[in-house]
Amino acid sequence: MSGWLKIVGLGPGSEKWLTPEASEILHNATDIVGYETYVKSLPETVTAKLHASDNGVEVERSEFAMELAEKGAKVAVVSGGDAGIFGMAAAIFEAIEKGKNEWCELNIEVVPAVSAMLAAAARIGAPLGHDFCVVSLSTYLKPWSIIEKRLRAASEGDMVLAIYNPASKQRREDLLSALKLLEELRGGGTIAIIATDVGRKQEKITVTTIAELDPELVTMHSLLIIGSSHTRLIERDGKQPFVYTPRFYQDS
Amino acid sequence: MSGWLKIVGLGPGSEKWLTPEASEILHNATDIVGYETYVKSLPETVTAKLHASDNGVEVERSEFAMELAEKGAKVAVVSGGDAGIFGMAAAIFEAIEKGKNEWCELNIEVVPAVSAMLAAAARIGAPLGHDFCVVSLSTYLKPWSIIEKRLRAASEGDMVLAIYNPASKQRREDLLSALKLLEELRGGGTIAIIATDVGRKQEKITVTTIAELDPELVTMHSLLIIGSSHTRLIERDGKQPFVYTPRFYQDS
Repeated sequence: MSGWLKIVGLGPGSEKWLTPEASEILHNATDIVGYETYVKSLPETVTAKLHASDNGVEVERSEFAMELAEKGAKVAVVSGGDAGIFGMAAAIFEAIEKGKNEWCELNIEVVPAVSAMLAAAARIGAPLGHDFCVVSLSTYLKPWSIIEKRLRAASEGDMVLAIYNPASKQRREDLLSALKLLEELRGGGTIAIIATDVGRKQEKITVTTIAELDPELVTMHSLLIIGSSHTRLIERDGKQPFVYTPRFYQDS
Repeated sequence: MSGWLKIVGLGPGSEKWLTPEASEILHNATDIVGYETYVKSLPETVTAKLHASDNGVEVERSEFAMELAEKGAKVAVVSGGDAGIFGMAAAIFEAIEKGKNEWCELNIEVVPAVSAMLAAAARIGAPLGHDFCVVSLSTYLKPWSIIEKRLRAASEGDMVLAIYNPASKQRREDLLSALKLLEELRGGGTIAIIATDVGRKQEKITVTTIAELDPELVTMHSLLIIGSSHTRLIERDGKQPFVYTPRFYQDS
């Protein structure tokens, strides 16, 4: 068996964030497996056989990729952003644990990348410059009771929040419930950032507050960053403000 | 004024994780400012004037960099990993807020990168595959009471923990206190990972439990990942196990 399986983060949107390691793997792979949006966005110089699939079939996609690698293919499973952050990496390991015993002896590697939250944070300054929590708002993945518990815990610890999967076309209620809860826990004046399609042509960054956040601006390609009590805003003439969370924590 | 200041994450250790964007900026800069370890690790093709400084002088370094940019230099301020995660980005914005009014009108940009925690997680599987918290253990930056509160909050929410700055040569007590507290909160059998010098020749990854974690293995170049109650280990014959946290949260 000379096959391998590498789970490759492409970074968020732009080829300027694709690491040399990821690029080399994409160009050496015989087969590339992933959600169609990401498979379609690969560099044009990639010659591997492409296997695009729909959103929501991560388990089937993982099993398919493992079967290919087992047969000797050099398989890159691609994810947007970093594959380890709400991406394909966990799905692959779920498949390995439930699948054939031989699968875990295959040559398997995760290739790190710039994650969406890091790119979003960079666009606005350094909102994640101090302790923070990363929470997915998807009730597809866990019950609302767990999400609520985690939003409460993050707020109890006064940590900045990076929120993945805030909403989809159909799923809007989770976002409204989360905003209501966070307003109660952190105050409506707390800084909130909506970062949509980061690294893509249609990128849009909105700096607002929890109380004034317009849920209509939030899409399935958005990520939210909610400040701690220490997160600060620097106004600029005619430009988007900077937002950052100081390195030092002082009650003042 | 044609100067600019870009705060550039170099990724953790290896040039294979340096993004094309970061590489381009390093090659276009007239001046590069940073902690000497990072300034020394730059690609050999970089021709900018190098300004290396010691650890712990982030404020002075930031002011120096802003002064250079104000005079028209093209300045890259470099950080290991991602500059927005306990790196130079927050330090620069602190300097801007305290410094001259003109500074916030300069051309300033943060350039995202692969962060140390993403690279460490990738080496072992997908431990950050579900909700998690990122906490610095440095009592240089905040009082122990705040750290304790956040470790408790993260545990209350059953979130995986990525711990930055777990110890230095002198500062060892914070680590021992944190391990004791986390053992009490999460149980001694909880999966713990020590990732040291990730991406460098001397990289060392240890998979253990909170109770069995050897503090002597933790250096100032280490990062810890502490599992949630759902984090799982996949044993492999003669190889390091995989560790991952499933995407789905089910009480079972």
